[in-house]
Amino acid sequence: MRAISSISFSGQLEDKIEAAAACGFEAIEIFREDIIGFDGPPDEIGRFARDAGIAVLSLQSLRDYEGLSGAARTEALARAEKFLDLAARIGAEMLILCANTRPESHAEGALEDLRLLADMAAARGLKVGYEALASSRHIPTVAAAHAAVQAVGRKNFGLVIGTVHLFASASGSLEDALATLREIEPQKLFLVHLADTPTTRIDPALIAASFRLFPGQGTLPVAALYSQLLVQGYDGPMSIESFNDQIRSLPAARIAEDAMRAFHLLEETHTRTARPRADLRGPGLVEFTAQGGDVDDFTSLFNALGFVETHENGPVSLWSQGAITLALNTTTKGLAHSIYLVQGASVSGVGLVVEDMPLMLGRIGLFHGEAVELAEPYGFARLRGPGGSVLFLQPGRYAPGPEFHVTGAAPAQGLLTHIDHVAQALQPNLFLSGLLFYRAAFDLRAHELRDVLDPHGTVHSRTLVNDSAAFRLSLNASFGAGTTTQRFLGKSGFAPFHHIALASDDIFGLAAKLDPQDVLAIPPNYYEDLALRFDLAPDFIARLREGNLMYDRDEGGSYLQLYTRAINGFFFEVVERRGYTGMGAANAPVRMLAQLREIEAEEALHLL
Amino acid sequence: MRAISSISFSGQLEDKIEAAAACGFEAIEIFREDIIGFDGPPDEIGRFARDAGIAVLSLQSLRDYEGLSGAARTEALARAEKFLDLAARIGAEMLILCANTRPESHAEGALEDLRLLADMAAARGLKVGYEALASSRHIPTVAAAHAAVQAVGRKNFGLVIGTVHLFASASGSLEDALATLREIEPQKLFLVHLADTPTTRIDPALIAASFRLFPGQGTLPVAALYSQLLVQGYDGPMSIESFNDQIRSLPAARIAEDAMRAFHLLEETHTRTARPRADLRGPGLVEFTAQGGDVDDFTSLFNALGFVETHENGPVSLWSQGAITLALNTTTKGLAHSIYLVQGASVSGVGLVVEDMPLMLGRIGLFHGEAVELAEPYGFARLRGPGGSVLFLQPGRYAPGPEFHVTGAAPAQGLLTHIDHVAQALQPNLFLSGLLFYRAAFDLRAHELRDVLDPHGTVHSRTLVNDSAAFRLSLNASFGAGTTTQRFLGKSGFAPFHHIALASDDIFGLAAKLDPQDVLAIPPNYYEDLALRFDLAPDFIARLREGNLMYDRDEGGSYLQLYTRAINGFFFEVVERRGYTGMGAANAPVRMLAQLREIEAEEALHLL
Repeated sequence: MRAISSISFSGQLEDKIEAAAACGFEAIEIFREDIIGFDGPPDEIGRFARDAGIAVLSLQSLRDYEGLSGAARTEALARAEKFLDLAARIGAEMLILCANTRPESHAEGALEDLRLLADMAAARGLKVGYEALASSRHIPTVAAAHAAVQAVGRKNFGLVIGTVHLFASASGSLEDALATLREIEPQKLFLVHLADTPTTRIDPALIAASFRLFPGQGTLPVAALYSQLLVQGYDGPMSIESFNDQIRSLPAARIAEDAMRAFHLLEETHTRTARPRADLRGPGLVEFTAQGGDVDDFTSLFNALGFVETHENGPVSLWSQGAITLALNTTTKGLAHSIYLVQGASVSGVGLVVEDMPLMLGRIGLFHGEAVELAEPYGFARLRGPGGSVLFLQPGRYAPGPEFHVTGAAPAQGLLTHIDHVAQALQPNLFLSGLLFYRAAFDLRAHELRDVLDPHGTVHSRTLVNDSAAFRLSLNASFGAGTTTQRFLGKSGFAPFHHIALASDDIFGLAAKLDPQDVLAIPPNYYEDLALRFDLAPDFIARLREGNLMYDRDEGGSYLQLYTRAINGFFFEVVERRGYTGMGAANAPVRMLAQLREIEAEEALHLL
Repeated sequence: MRAISSISFSGQLEDKIEAAAACGFEAIEIFREDIIGFDGPPDEIGRFARDAGIAVLSLQSLRDYEGLSGAARTEALARAEKFLDLAARIGAEMLILCANTRPESHAEGALEDLRLLADMAAARGLKVGYEALASSRHIPTVAAAHAAVQAVGRKNFGLVIGTVHLFASASGSLEDALATLREIEPQKLFLVHLADTPTTRIDPALIAASFRLFPGQGTLPVAALYSQLLVQGYDGPMSIESFNDQIRSLPAARIAEDAMRAFHLLEETHTRTARPRADLRGPGLVEFTAQGGDVDDFTSLFNALGFVETHENGPVSLWSQGAITLALNTTTKGLAHSIYLVQGASVSGVGLVVEDMPLMLGRIGLFHGEAVELAEPYGFARLRGPGGSVLFLQPGRYAPGPEFHVTGAAPAQGLLTHIDHVAQALQPNLFLSGLLFYRAAFDLRAHELRDVLDPHGTVHSRTLVNDSAAFRLSLNASFGAGTTTQRFLGKSGFAPFHHIALASDDIFGLAAKLDPQDVLAIPPNYYEDLALRFDLAPDFIARLREGNLMYDRDEGGSYLQLYTRAINGFFFEVVERRGYTGMGAANAPVRMLAQLREIEAEEALHLL
């Protein structure tokens, strides 16, 4: 049973219930604090949820109950009665009890108190779910809570576990976490809370308080626990309990969609364990939308890079070189033009070559609540990605239909061979959501978060790749208003493609042919610095400098990069990989610095 | 010697050097990466700095140098030569060497390599500063680096320590950190890096990478280390090396000011250790700026709360009750009106009653680069605080001069007695800067960061208090655009006062007199929830509900609160403390929820 906790959402309880129901959740857990904002007495919550088509799974959470003595125990018992009454009133089937964290609580009386609570709950037809807390003296671990549940020995008293806590108590070891799971009798397990964390290098209590993500957005192998639970025969509720400022700032409907997507990703990962399969083969057609002077700006840059116009179909022209096809769309109708109106000259669609199209289309319909449409005039399926960005799904390399007439022949010996990677800039609150979208929809792997120092702040970057590494996507977001990423977003909408990297097997040759006006000028001191970082021959450095090329190296080999001038913030990168596997992150701050100078020079001109 | 590292700034090296020089720093450390963006050959950096009036202290940093063998050692030696050449070219007196973190480095050869580097440096007239790194196998601690420096035994080879690393290697224990310091011979210590951290509950490497704050902005007792160093007779350079996205998003001039303020705070804390003294006695006059219909809105709210107009002087009227004086300023000239034009009807100044005015005025001039002006018509000194907010400095309770004519008598038996606390909302990138301003200027203590759950995101909150707890200020910031805090800021500038809490000794009496229209309506389920949280008599809860009062309790006693309706986002809070020492943070989410409903209802009306 797929459930979600109301704490995963921001906003009003009514909106949370409706959003969860609309996205197909079968049950919702309700945080006590959320009842305060409900517009009606608590007794109406159960009916409201039923009307929306969702069950109330639990009331979260009774705390500091068991193992007290004297007046404190009397008070705790009275409080427990009130919580059980409230759970019954809101139509929940279960009350969550968190292990007592008060220092004065003692293990001796705890068992009797837990039995008492189970019996009080049974009298109301309710279950009690018991959850360990790292800060509890007596029940800090899942194993301790499991032992207590067994000792209590009541049918309506069971265990609640959470993935973040489970990994934390296993010191982040998957083997230990799985071993703990295997010890648990399935019928004693009432509920599993699913969440992820961005890093395991933070104090567990701090993560629990502030940094919980949806499964798939962080670094924990939540999918392995999910699989193990199914293998063990667990068929009780699993509930997404996430908590994070970045997530909470999104509307309830988006949060519910992302949470359901996280479930689908877990399920897919589980069913695929036996047969790994890459869903994408690589990037495909890239479409640009432009009007007026920007059209010439793009075509002159395409020409400079060695692209040749091969086809035309009304307002759409195709430009080819190697395995790369670019489309320049000057239409004044439809989605491409709408994108132009919103964000000016820009990438209006990126193609993804899909391995098994019928499977992909079936999955997208069933999976994410996303719909595909037909992308004219290419005949592709079109899908809207993060922030409304456009993705084309192609069954293979794009071959223009008869409605395109031939205007030229692709160059036989172009210096560019294929698309190396694509970079998308996201508004910061869409970063986690976008990451989950790409992981779930296309089964991409996410590398660890990397922070790149822009001159005016930090740009957070994560690279997503498919299994064959033929498709590489870099997602970038930044909170600083002055960073190049955020400045680009400021004029280009919510999630535009920021640059496309084209692979070359002769970047020096290309650099020699390019007009310096078309290339981003690299600060001369970069080449001084390069001599400190690497043991390079002076004349090699001189050649790099002459071509405004950048250089990096890793265990696999070396990497050469150049950047074109920007058109409305968008730019091409040209790369030559000589065994290197990274994305040139070490050079990104210098590129941002150089671009910022151009932006500021341009802005200064506008002020004149 | 007060220094700062170029990594503490964002932007261009030239701006960093000039900003540091303008704020009185004597030296700057230069990060290698910053040289890339310098507009000229590295050789010109030293002269550029000298012309700006600041020395180049060091080149940061040679890494992975010592303890290698074979070709790697040859390469490291060649690299070291290049780094020393660069240090000499930029006019630095010292090269910073970070302990080798490569797993293949070995302790055996390291000593010889360090001596070699010292001699290579000596040949150029340079010093080498050696810094331990937690991730280094051989030199993970300050003690290990100190031992190495002693073993090297060269006059120009000394130790570099950093406060964050020092606390981390002492497991956060101040005693252990001080003990480590005491072992160090002052003449072997070449440089101290000063920084703070927001919490000690994060992995040290992660803090070092992303979360370093200015001293005074976080939770480490940096001032105690600073004092100990002076007591030991250390008179070498101390350099602020901070690193944080929130700080980096500020302009260079603001960063330099804040860093210098951090130095002044350290120095003041050091000189005061012998004679603690509170600088503020409490809050003073609160001035509101208003025009047109807002004037009546304020006066009717003042009247409803029991204030009486006592004085008038042209456009300024004074309103009194108990120890509270409010000024309503309807001027169309000067600063108060400028604030009206920028942010509409709002608080245009908050008075602070200063214990020793000559001392305070002397300090402000000398201390922060801030200037005071005369605040007409009150005759106070006026100081601009975070984001340009206005603070009046009063020598005691405000007594209007003869230019004010009497219009009425303050109520003999008012229900409000004094100002309990003041809340200011800050744009998120000003949060740390504002915190440091209040700490440094008024010697306030800062409580730990607290996160309050607004329905649409998290509001970060820190409470600042003076020693007598008579002055309490709550600073709030939020990244979520939909939070009540951020919505208020959206229409009210950078750092407006969001609410003023007034103390009452009969809040039930006041609630009974107030028109329900003037009071924020609390959701009925709040009172259901209260019964779960506390063991309160049903008729007491009924009285709370009737008056729209909120309730909280801590070890000290209980707390009653009510909120007035908002005027342009500003509102009053009325509190009755019955021994309670907190700020009612547990109720803040409910208050935000209730206010959000009012805001949304109002916005819906505007859309009609």
